[in-house]
Amino acid sequence: MSKKWLENIRRVTPYTPGEQPKEAGVIKLNTNENPYPPAPGVLRAVRNVTEDSYRKYPDPVCRELIDAIAKEYGLDPAQVFVGVGSDDVLAMSFMTFFNSDRPILFPDITYSFYDVWAELLKIPYEQIPLDDELKIRPEDYTRPNGGVIFPNPNAPTGALLDIESVERILAANTDSIVIVDEAYIDFGGVSALPLLDKYPQLLVVQTFSKSRSLAGMRIGAAFGSRELIHYLNQVKFSFNSYTMDAVSLAAGKAAVEDVEWFERTRRMIMSTRERTAAKLRKLGFRFSDSAANFLFVTHPEVPAEELFTVLRENRIYVRYFRQKRIDNYLRITIGTDEEMDTLTEFLGTYLENRSAGR
Amino acid sequence: MSKKWLENIRRVTPYTPGEQPKEAGVIKLNTNENPYPPAPGVLRAVRNVTEDSYRKYPDPVCRELIDAIAKEYGLDPAQVFVGVGSDDVLAMSFMTFFNSDRPILFPDITYSFYDVWAELLKIPYEQIPLDDELKIRPEDYTRPNGGVIFPNPNAPTGALLDIESVERILAANTDSIVIVDEAYIDFGGVSALPLLDKYPQLLVVQTFSKSRSLAGMRIGAAFGSRELIHYLNQVKFSFNSYTMDAVSLAAGKAAVEDVEWFERTRRMIMSTRERTAAKLRKLGFRFSDSAANFLFVTHPEVPAEELFTVLRENRIYVRYFRQKRIDNYLRITIGTDEEMDTLTEFLGTYLENRSAGR
Repeated sequence: MSKKWLENIRRVTPYTPGEQPKEAGVIKLNTNENPYPPAPGVLRAVRNVTEDSYRKYPDPVCRELIDAIAKEYGLDPAQVFVGVGSDDVLAMSFMTFFNSDRPILFPDITYSFYDVWAELLKIPYEQIPLDDELKIRPEDYTRPNGGVIFPNPNAPTGALLDIESVERILAANTDSIVIVDEAYIDFGGVSALPLLDKYPQLLVVQTFSKSRSLAGMRIGAAFGSRELIHYLNQVKFSFNSYTMDAVSLAAGKAAVEDVEWFERTRRMIMSTRERTAAKLRKLGFRFSDSAANFLFVTHPEVPAEELFTVLRENRIYVRYFRQKRIDNYLRITIGTDEEMDTLTEFLGTYLENRSAGR
Repeated sequence: MSKKWLENIRRVTPYTPGEQPKEAGVIKLNTNENPYPPAPGVLRAVRNVTEDSYRKYPDPVCRELIDAIAKEYGLDPAQVFVGVGSDDVLAMSFMTFFNSDRPILFPDITYSFYDVWAELLKIPYEQIPLDDELKIRPEDYTRPNGGVIFPNPNAPTGALLDIESVERILAANTDSIVIVDEAYIDFGGVSALPLLDKYPQLLVVQTFSKSRSLAGMRIGAAFGSRELIHYLNQVKFSFNSYTMDAVSLAAGKAAVEDVEWFERTRRMIMSTRERTAAKLRKLGFRFSDSAANFLFVTHPEVPAEELFTVLRENRIYVRYFRQKRIDNYLRITIGTDEEMDTLTEFLGTYLENRSAGR
């Protein structure tokens, strides 16, 4: 039989997620997960989901979750959108907002899903090089475009753009939609949310996967003007009416309502980050300040790939990107103090033995 | 400020899901949900999901759920794809497989998401009229096309196409991809799954929302040749790597493993359907045989819209489509025997009073 039916299939090169090792006893610092469990109310809320909620369709407008988020962020519920992780929210946003013939702009070194979505959805794009310190230059985002997207803090560098620079990009782009991807904002950055009132073309995207310890439940949110959120909903309801299941809706609500747990755990992670940063600097690692739950480090004497390999052999998983300009860096997620101590002690011994030629 | 940023937004007319009434005491026969709870193992499996699984990313390849489904259906796991309900699976399939300049073909009266997806994804399409008995004519699907999709049984008619007719459509379309949407197949139809070996261009889509009582958990599956499933995965990993959360993965696995519960509850629904059909025929309703968990009925003397309204006033929700050719029909989901008795008794009294002029 001929295989003519293969001709019209869409061919794409997908995003590669970080490894999820199955073996026990691994120190997993490779996918920016939170080392602490979610708020205690989350598991209680899940256990209280009734049999009826399993067999019936979930609320397609996600009313209770959206109301809880809006309340916590001091916004109108009509300014809030939720989806299956921020990846779903971002994919829907690309589909809804990036329909120009002009290229959308994003950094050359950034979340590696942006170019994958642009390719999948046939959106023209231009990747703007970060400067020599691997930072975003706001003035690069003033050229004519079909939209702008950047993470703040950026990934995988962890570098934060101050809020004045974010506003400069918004002020220069009043004719196109600007998406600020704040997946890591809760670890020390200043959110662009207060700029929503001033810039109706701003969409802020956040996730429950990092600072709220719910990567396993796939919950993401977008915040914007009522107009942007309206169109985003129209596309969502044209793609899949019921994206969030009954359990993730309940889990998300419980997570956002426990402010104390959120504050406590994110502060612990920031404190461990600074502690780890000091130790890594002592070991000779170089890196810029991180406002995320990871450090993006390089060593002047030891290739990153070598470190990645020996760490992995010793069951410490970090992330290594075989990509131009950053192929001598490691992205190390911040775990518990204990996990980070194991990491820095191992590296200390390894570097010492190496320089002693052992 | 100018609103030039609005210009590049994608404008679509979304799908309208059935109502989810909040009030208690409603008899809900409007969204084809299963009246019975999911298999008892489902809630147990959900309770056993560990804190670690909440904070970590879920398995992106959904290995355990896919293996369980493959085992139950006697297929290779490489022939199985899962997503966030069959809506997600179908949307991904439209994106992956329908990229021709030729129109895809589907019935004029069918699942009303097909034209919404085609519009959203800018896929040319042609709606083929059902015959005068509201049935699919296989010979209508032999013209040149960019793909074919139809539900079997069809929605909202409930009419089943026999497997020989399904194969006739496949044999006539060896050059394009044919999707058989079997959302309702477990209520008395013959699945096209055994045809997978013979037709590498066949994709069968099913859902856990109806026969497995898990509408609230958003689980759908596709079955096809390894080649089709490979390309579907490439697109999925270009859209959202982690679509299914830890809890829905666990729930789905437990549901598919309880064969006895599945058999018992689907047989109860089929038996209630035949019982209800006999009563409705006695009341003068007309309809074809249904192989789904709903009946699609019309009454020669009383407008469907009138019945829809009085039922709703009496807190019995059924589905009414204000659409050409079917605007004198009601789609009634099969609930429990007790719920269906309340419905038929109410209709009996209403029709009697109405013809007596009361």
